[in-house]
Amino acid sequence: MQNDLMPNFLKNRSYLTPNRVAVYFNNRQLTFHELYERSVETAGKFQSQGVRRGQYVGVLLKNHLDTIVVLFALQLLGVRAVILNNRLTSSEIIWQLKDSQAAFLITEKSFADKELEIRDMIPTLPTLIKEQLDSLPMETPDIEEEINLGDVCTIMYTSGTTGKPKGVMQTYGNHWWSSVGSALNLGFTDSDCWLCSVPLFHISGYSILMRSVIYGMPIVLHESFDVEKIIEDFHSKRVTIMSVVGTMLTRIVDFIGEEQLPQSFRCMLLGGGPAPLPLLQFCVAKDIPVFQTYGMTETSSQIVTLSPEYSISKLGSAGKPLFPSQVRIMLDDGRRAQEGETGEIFVKGPNVTPGYLNRPGAMLDRTKDGWFSTGDIGYLDDEGFLYVLDRRSDLIISGGENVYPAEIESVLLSHPFVKDAGVTGQEDERWGQVPIAFIVIKERIAVSRNELELFCMERLAKYKVPKDFKFVEELPRNASNKLLRRKLKGEH
Amino acid sequence: MQNDLMPNFLKNRSYLTPNRVAVYFNNRQLTFHELYERSVETAGKFQSQGVRRGQYVGVLLKNHLDTIVVLFALQLLGVRAVILNNRLTSSEIIWQLKDSQAAFLITEKSFADKELEIRDMIPTLPTLIKEQLDSLPMETPDIEEEINLGDVCTIMYTSGTTGKPKGVMQTYGNHWWSSVGSALNLGFTDSDCWLCSVPLFHISGYSILMRSVIYGMPIVLHESFDVEKIIEDFHSKRVTIMSVVGTMLTRIVDFIGEEQLPQSFRCMLLGGGPAPLPLLQFCVAKDIPVFQTYGMTETSSQIVTLSPEYSISKLGSAGKPLFPSQVRIMLDDGRRAQEGETGEIFVKGPNVTPGYLNRPGAMLDRTKDGWFSTGDIGYLDDEGFLYVLDRRSDLIISGGENVYPAEIESVLLSHPFVKDAGVTGQEDERWGQVPIAFIVIKERIAVSRNELELFCMERLAKYKVPKDFKFVEELPRNASNKLLRRKLKGEH
Repeated sequence: MQNDLMPNFLKNRSYLTPNRVAVYFNNRQLTFHELYERSVETAGKFQSQGVRRGQYVGVLLKNHLDTIVVLFALQLLGVRAVILNNRLTSSEIIWQLKDSQAAFLITEKSFADKELEIRDMIPTLPTLIKEQLDSLPMETPDIEEEINLGDVCTIMYTSGTTGKPKGVMQTYGNHWWSSVGSALNLGFTDSDCWLCSVPLFHISGYSILMRSVIYGMPIVLHESFDVEKIIEDFHSKRVTIMSVVGTMLTRIVDFIGEEQLPQSFRCMLLGGGPAPLPLLQFCVAKDIPVFQTYGMTETSSQIVTLSPEYSISKLGSAGKPLFPSQVRIMLDDGRRAQEGETGEIFVKGPNVTPGYLNRPGAMLDRTKDGWFSTGDIGYLDDEGFLYVLDRRSDLIISGGENVYPAEIESVLLSHPFVKDAGVTGQEDERWGQVPIAFIVIKERIAVSRNELELFCMERLAKYKVPKDFKFVEELPRNASNKLLRRKLKGEH
Repeated sequence: MQNDLMPNFLKNRSYLTPNRVAVYFNNRQLTFHELYERSVETAGKFQSQGVRRGQYVGVLLKNHLDTIVVLFALQLLGVRAVILNNRLTSSEIIWQLKDSQAAFLITEKSFADKELEIRDMIPTLPTLIKEQLDSLPMETPDIEEEINLGDVCTIMYTSGTTGKPKGVMQTYGNHWWSSVGSALNLGFTDSDCWLCSVPLFHISGYSILMRSVIYGMPIVLHESFDVEKIIEDFHSKRVTIMSVVGTMLTRIVDFIGEEQLPQSFRCMLLGGGPAPLPLLQFCVAKDIPVFQTYGMTETSSQIVTLSPEYSISKLGSAGKPLFPSQVRIMLDDGRRAQEGETGEIFVKGPNVTPGYLNRPGAMLDRTKDGWFSTGDIGYLDDEGFLYVLDRRSDLIISGGENVYPAEIESVLLSHPFVKDAGVTGQEDERWGQVPIAFIVIKERIAVSRNELELFCMERLAKYKVPKDFKFVEELPRNASNKLLRRKLKGEH
């Protein structure tokens, strides 16, 4: 028997439990059968425009009921969705569209400005506007009746230490195993309902979609994080689980004040970097069930999660791996770390990406004996609980978004007056961290903070633009001229 | 990443949730950590006797805490367990041990008689007696840290239309996907607890073991079906799920009378052939949550199950496939059946066996385009619910045990006075069905019912011995001389 074939997720779910609610969005709702029917229709429209199996197709949309339909329509056709972070600038998006050789761009009216700029730079790229799909002819789409778990489902770009973002390939199997691993850890009942106010273009949001269809579970989709509406839906939709990042959790805690969350609510799945200990302690005291997690785009969502029974005794730990996955700590000298010894975190499992789009070398660089090097620093305690001490060497996490210093530095270095640039994170009450830049100006030249900020604004998503620019004589570098980012703050 | 590798199930579970209870048995209990420690110790004893990775090892044991330890010890060593039905006669067991080329037999004192006979017939086969393990030297066992989902975990013999039993190979992946498919269908919470009073040598019992370790869920193991003890444990152990066959369900219903099952109990998973409709209706009226299922050794437990929301409206249906699996009906002319059309049931999925031990041809005979032919007859209604009309052509299901007419016939035909023999099922109030035999005696010979019964008793497990022998002139056969078993009863 071929163990890698499975019935098409959405079609199968629509067959198994057609009448269960799949999505609540504002005042609307769709059952799995309705979601399937609408996705088939949309797939037919896409096909009439030439969208075909195996293509890479850019998706630039906000969280919306239609976005879910678009994403499933692409799955039905066997198209690989290049899911674009809609906070990026046009030039960042263009770079990703070109890098993935996208055959189409699917977007919406509210991004008309960006769309114009994209069309300007890639005139050959056909664009499909969400609001204009109705007017397109409808073909009977060629549905993928069975999917191969090894096939690529989605591409999400992340940067890293090298500056330019790389497209992480997430297979159907990656998403499947992530969902199953999470279900085995958190449990799952037919009264579960997952609230999604994180972006669908992030793995944190997209993975909720996949769980919905694999578990047969409704999700409550929000366009953005609005704490009042969220607490309202906790009650009216009987939400049981929500994915949050630290800043969201803080705002929820502030908002409810003396109130309690409803009894039915059972899990606050906390990702996007380590949360401050006082926040966690406060949640324990208030009976808010927080499950700390550790994961990344390359692991298709959480790979390590703190189980319910340890939420108090192991406060601050990210927990243990999901059942199908494994974690280990390696020392610089290649030895495996002992209990309590700090080193680099390596992971392994069927939810780990097979690699980066068109960059086989980049994956080889990060893989040792089948283990994936996260670049993050941590240790396992005497019972095997993971403690993450420091994210990917220089990664800054700002309001749940990953910000890579190297990417910002390469923009700054492209400024004609900048001789050298280094970026690092600074603590921030609202966002956890924000990027700040250290600049060496070319000799006999003057340039203002404002000018650099504008320069960045044009080229980088807002959350990546440094909140401060400090002018310095030189940057700390080691013997082999590698920038020592951690020394930036110390030395200046 | 290698998607077929997973951490050793028991070792991983012991790492993830060491302190959860794994098994209750009589007045004892073991946590996952304790179960792992004991299994490692037993694995060390086995290894000291020459038990090695990749061997086939016969297991002839009753339901007992030690049996669970033995079965997991074999998993830790990467040994393939040939799990023997302990109701079989010595000659049946010997046949399976020879067929699988078993390197060892693990058994217990209570089967001393059988063990003597086996040793007589296979003097080269080393035997390990459960009660004597303590006296064996202990080695540090070579634990399989990772398992390959494609590796064979267990062998269970089933017969079929051909007479001699065949060893069904069940891989780790088969068991894994079966467990996951069931969890996605039934849901799973950390208050779940599964009662196992079905034999561990059947897939119905062994699959509960696998779910226990994959979910991190306690099981309550019973040596046999004792309705009073079972209801007692429903309360004292807060059992939520139990696997039953029709005859067990009847006795539970009779026993509780006017009482209700405890609120915490949520699922009576009913396998082993279709249950009588009045029993199901009675359970609905009494709020006993019965989930009808359809499955076989070759699908590593249920592959089709009736979901909670349809237990009333689709009473009598076996339901829909588990998420990773598929079912379809094929007509004799090779066409796929329409809604409501009756034909042969075919199944597909990662829980379906890769084949029969040393009999690649037998699997090819039952596979078409990747679909496995069950031999059973049924139809799908307009919503895709499966109705099983008739089990595998001639299969008799007696008290949950599969009885294959061809196997009994071949024993009868080996009697020197029997010229022809045909076996079919007869309704039975207690067992659902029992086998009865139709015999054509050689000319001018007299033989008594008693003599034939004794002859069978020596060669067949008790539940296979015909409950009646009818002497006839000839048997109904078609033009190509194939026995028409269904006509046996009608014509006589």
